[in-house]
Amino acid sequence: MKIETTHLHATNDHSHDLLIGLDIGGTKIEALAVDQDFITWGQFNRLTDISSPENFVASVTDAIYQVLNQAQAMPSQIIGIGIGIPGQINTETGEVRLAANLNLSAYPLGDTISNIFNVPTFIENDVRLAAIGVYHWQKMHTPVKSIAYLSIGTGVGTGVIINGRLYRGSHGMAGEIGHITVEPNGLLCKCGARGCLETIISGPAIVQQALNAIQFDIPHHEVHAGHVYRAAADGNPTAQAIVQRVSDYISQAIQWLIMTYDVDQVVLGGGVSGAGTAFLTPILSVLSNYRAQSALFATMLQESKIVLLPTGYNAGTWGAVYLTNESDRQPTQG
Amino acid sequence: MKIETTHLHATNDHSHDLLIGLDIGGTKIEALAVDQDFITWGQFNRLTDISSPENFVASVTDAIYQVLNQAQAMPSQIIGIGIGIPGQINTETGEVRLAANLNLSAYPLGDTISNIFNVPTFIENDVRLAAIGVYHWQKMHTPVKSIAYLSIGTGVGTGVIINGRLYRGSHGMAGEIGHITVEPNGLLCKCGARGCLETIISGPAIVQQALNAIQFDIPHHEVHAGHVYRAAADGNPTAQAIVQRVSDYISQAIQWLIMTYDVDQVVLGGGVSGAGTAFLTPILSVLSNYRAQSALFATMLQESKIVLLPTGYNAGTWGAVYLTNESDRQPTQG
Repeated sequence: MKIETTHLHATNDHSHDLLIGLDIGGTKIEALAVDQDFITWGQFNRLTDISSPENFVASVTDAIYQVLNQAQAMPSQIIGIGIGIPGQINTETGEVRLAANLNLSAYPLGDTISNIFNVPTFIENDVRLAAIGVYHWQKMHTPVKSIAYLSIGTGVGTGVIINGRLYRGSHGMAGEIGHITVEPNGLLCKCGARGCLETIISGPAIVQQALNAIQFDIPHHEVHAGHVYRAAADGNPTAQAIVQRVSDYISQAIQWLIMTYDVDQVVLGGGVSGAGTAFLTPILSVLSNYRAQSALFATMLQESKIVLLPTGYNAGTWGAVYLTNESDRQPTQG
Repeated sequence: MKIETTHLHATNDHSHDLLIGLDIGGTKIEALAVDQDFITWGQFNRLTDISSPENFVASVTDAIYQVLNQAQAMPSQIIGIGIGIPGQINTETGEVRLAANLNLSAYPLGDTISNIFNVPTFIENDVRLAAIGVYHWQKMHTPVKSIAYLSIGTGVGTGVIINGRLYRGSHGMAGEIGHITVEPNGLLCKCGARGCLETIISGPAIVQQALNAIQFDIPHHEVHAGHVYRAAADGNPTAQAIVQRVSDYISQAIQWLIMTYDVDQVVLGGGVSGAGTAFLTPILSVLSNYRAQSALFATMLQESKIVLLPTGYNAGTWGAVYLTNESDRQPTQG
């Protein structure tokens, strides 16, 4: 399998069947068009319109037409569409149960898109979808069979690949570790519970901890987790304490994932991980302390199991095109 | 499939092929002989001899002969032997890597037993093996596909069944949640690390917490977790505080298992669970508090998902006979 993300094949050869992958967030839609050899023919980003379900569908449809246009292809060349959505999905019916950031609930997105383009459409939660993309990316470098993709961004979630296949659990909820209770008397989470992991390690949680304690020379609404990591690297002791606490909890989450699933690798991604080395180094340090404690940890928590996803790789759109190709998926038929 | 555990078929019909299941602990060996319809023909318990590997094998072999004798059967009728061991197993080679309670390390138990009886022998960690037995038991009552069996006894571990099959993970270590760190500055665990879950909720940990604070009218070495649960039920406030803390952590472990694996049910077993209602009630109470916090928990942590394994059912020996029947298992060939 040949995958090229840096070079678009914009020739005049229109004969290819195309797989379309969409990674839809509250802010933007990223679209990818590849052929059945997973050669890239088009990439396109646009803003998401969440003002109404109709306008949302129009923005999704537009993204598909734009990426087709870039690939110099016709809608009839599409043979499958994969879509990642931040929310709860009924993957069998293609219904978006709840996606608060997209202003959607109980919406038949699979049927809608499938009817417009007359092709099978597959919908999946965005983190689980990204796990599929991460797995295929990682497999190109290492002979992995199982990974846990821990996404730390606005939310915190895990997508788990076991024996090369997405593991969804009995109700499509496997890997919802952002809402594991870590501080029973902690901060209120947007889910309604107290002290969820997400209230400490998510991007907004890191920013909130910093805004309460550090003076930034940019407007508050422009501060993101990367600024906190930079302040820590610059020697700000308050920022360092925040980063240490966040790293302790992320390391604990990595420990959970390895001790429960016994996966080959834990891959770290999401917006917060974009801080790169400043993000990864303190986590590896905590894990090194774990390893020094016991033979079990020395074996199970090896540094080689921890991988930082490169920011240049769009795991979401790649997961979406691979999703159309998963043999066991029930598509919403067009 | 018909399963009878209360009635032995001791007729003179010797024509049955037999599956032998052994649950081997540091104290005793429990043996079960069933035919291919899973009808019970023999059950036998004896002490484990851990004075040397040779004496250990002799005690295992004796248990097999005794259960055959009870079934009025010949060794040639055995078509498979399944064995559960408290320790780390290489399930492919049948080697016991480390079983401290049995005084064994790097011991080729599979080959040894397989050569004596000239039949395929399957070895598995005892908790994972019990999970297979629990799953088959549970499936008779409820249409479950996935369970996490949380065993709380001398140790704490989980066996996970996904889509009806034992999930072992990449290194046969899936479900090692007894050694998840819950109190980084907590008590030293026998694994060498500090504050493992096992240092709080295991039987010996519960007893130790109680001995430090409560006066019992029996010798210290006779106190077990059931006495602490009884003292709590009798109104002893110190015992109640210990039970509450233990129940908080068990409930958190249940939350982890459901949020990570999204299984249909979490089944609780092991020696500590033998306290029955006194064990279960405070856990259900904590989970009820979780459910009141958020819609996510209300859905995911439903009381119907929590099941207490009846003490009368020997999940270990049943898991062992089912193990011989698992289609994907590589036996140590006799």
